[in-house]
Amino acid sequence: MLFYIYIVAITAEAMSGALAAGRRNMDMFGVALIAFLTALGGGTMRDIILGNYPISWTQHPSYVYLTISAGLLTMLVARYMQRLNRMFLVLDAMGLIAFTIIGCNVALSLEPKYHYSTLVVVMAGMMTGVGGGIFRDILCNRTPQVLRHELYASVSLLVALLYLGLKYIGIDENINMSVSFVVGLSIRLAAIYWNWSLPVFSYSPNKWQ
Amino acid sequence: MLFYIYIVAITAEAMSGALAAGRRNMDMFGVALIAFLTALGGGTMRDIILGNYPISWTQHPSYVYLTISAGLLTMLVARYMQRLNRMFLVLDAMGLIAFTIIGCNVALSLEPKYHYSTLVVVMAGMMTGVGGGIFRDILCNRTPQVLRHELYASVSLLVALLYLGLKYIGIDENINMSVSFVVGLSIRLAAIYWNWSLPVFSYSPNKWQ
Amino acid sequence: MLFYIYIVAITAEAMSGALAAGRRNMDMFGVALIAFLTALGGGTMRDIILGNYPISWTQHPSYVYLTISAGLLTMLVARYMQRLNRMFLVLDAMGLIAFTIIGCNVALSLEPKYHYSTLVVVMAGMMTGVGGGIFRDILCNRTPQVLRHELYASVSLLVALLYLGLKYIGIDENINMSVSFVVGLSIRLAAIYWNWSLPVFSYSPNKWQ
Repeated sequence: MLFYIYIVAITAEAMSGALAAGRRNMDMFGVALIAFLTALGGGTMRDIILGNYPISWTQHPSYVYLTISAGLLTMLVARYMQRLNRMFLVLDAMGLIAFTIIGCNVALSLEPKYHYSTLVVVMAGMMTGVGGGIFRDILCNRTPQVLRHELYASVSLLVALLYLGLKYIGIDENINMSVSFVVGLSIRLAAIYWNWSLPVFSYSPNKWQ
Repeated sequence: MLFYIYIVAITAEAMSGALAAGRRNMDMFGVALIAFLTALGGGTMRDIILGNYPISWTQHPSYVYLTISAGLLTMLVARYMQRLNRMFLVLDAMGLIAFTIIGCNVALSLEPKYHYSTLVVVMAGMMTGVGGGIFRDILCNRTPQVLRHELYASVSLLVALLYLGLKYIGIDENINMSVSFVVGLSIRLAAIYWNWSLPVFSYSPNKWQ
Repeated sequence: MLFYIYIVAITAEAMSGALAAGRRNMDMFGVALIAFLTALGGGTMRDIILGNYPISWTQHPSYVYLTISAGLLTMLVARYMQRLNRMFLVLDAMGLIAFTIIGCNVALSLEPKYHYSTLVVVMAGMMTGVGGGIFRDILCNRTPQVLRHELYASVSLLVALLYLGLKYIGIDENINMSVSFVVGLSIRLAAIYWNWSLPVFSYSPNKWQ
């Protein structure tokens, strides 16, 4: 199940990257690159930081073709996508959760080679979940949305903690994933609907620094 | 031959990085850093993503000294460089091709350790070719030029495919490189001359995302 | 001694990152991420480039908790921090020197695995010293301050050269560190006080490039 959600998620993320590239008037190559990085950049960063070589997508060329195709296709269908607004928000939320769970498992699977503490496992999940969006925004030269939006990274953190907690107490993997998805998705959608957000820190420039 | 072209190419790339730093009023250190990253940043990214340790330039300090010197020298001679405009475009195009071919070969040389598919070999070539320019533009806080310019990354893609195709059917390495250079250079210069470019994707901001 | 200075330094760097995030109106998650990256990002970049796996902070979760806590605490106490302006400049200068010395030693400690030349050891020190500030500025979408400020990266360079020089001629490690600190701190504070800076390269846009 996680595999199918992952496929849908990288497609949705690639399309969101393509739209961001379109807002900067990039050419086909730029669109393809940003689509790829938005979908697979978080996992790349995770693999580099954990020392997980070879990096996942280099062993799965089909993911690369999928994200690039989705990005290029977006150039053609962008005008019809506004109606799909809500569907995309749900797909994006599912992707956030799937990415987070996959990221945690990658860190755990490295146990024989490197021992990573729970903190690092959680960070690996969050990097996978939100990293792609950060790359997209840096390449499109804007302040990363994920750093000043409604609950997004927080949902990733919560899902990672819930999933690892349930795993630790020995809950069956399928039940664990289902619970993590239901809880994560509910909170994310509630956050969008009611505009929940974390406290914002506004600091006015002055002489300091 | 590839070695000499590489030396000329990293020098030319370093100088282009220094000019970009100058447009942001950076100090000597900034100029040196951006010159270094523009010339050697693409190869660094490629080595990190492929897991090719130790990273190439760490074993060739002379390349580092060369790029930093070229960057600092540019501070002195920038005012005379406008007349050399055309020569630089040719050097930059030669660098793009040399970097691409070298990048493909690095990925191929890792075969005993990691098996990389042709897609990844092509991507390694392109990363080496266009990566430095992307770093330069991110550090100078502008949307990467390479993502919205005339055929540039596309030339790198084409050269990688041509070079690997000829290699695959067993053409002699020297002939292969010569053909790749002539074809790549012709297309790049024609693209500059006639302003060829890829379709641009312009997407206007609205409520979606 | 280096250990305590390191702890103070990552705390001070984390707080400077949090203030930069506050100027961009980021939420709590953004503040925590930028605090973490400002404090530990330079060392992360160094470890990735040197191939020093597992990356240092993944084996010391307490550093991660410390930097995130310092960042979040800054949200509460920012208004009182302006009076501490001078103290922060001194802490930041001490951090720059401690980071530089630690970075050099990490590169030297990899000798059995990879041989790194003195140039790379110096660069490892500088990356550790100034890398975090560069990440902070890229994520806050501004041209990195360190690339156009008074002597900052230069102090890191000088400290690395002095420390390695004294080490090479066999000076006792404790005396070496003390000398490096006194010299580095004096130059950095003098640079702030008298506004010393490197020559700036200003290049006006024109047709070239």
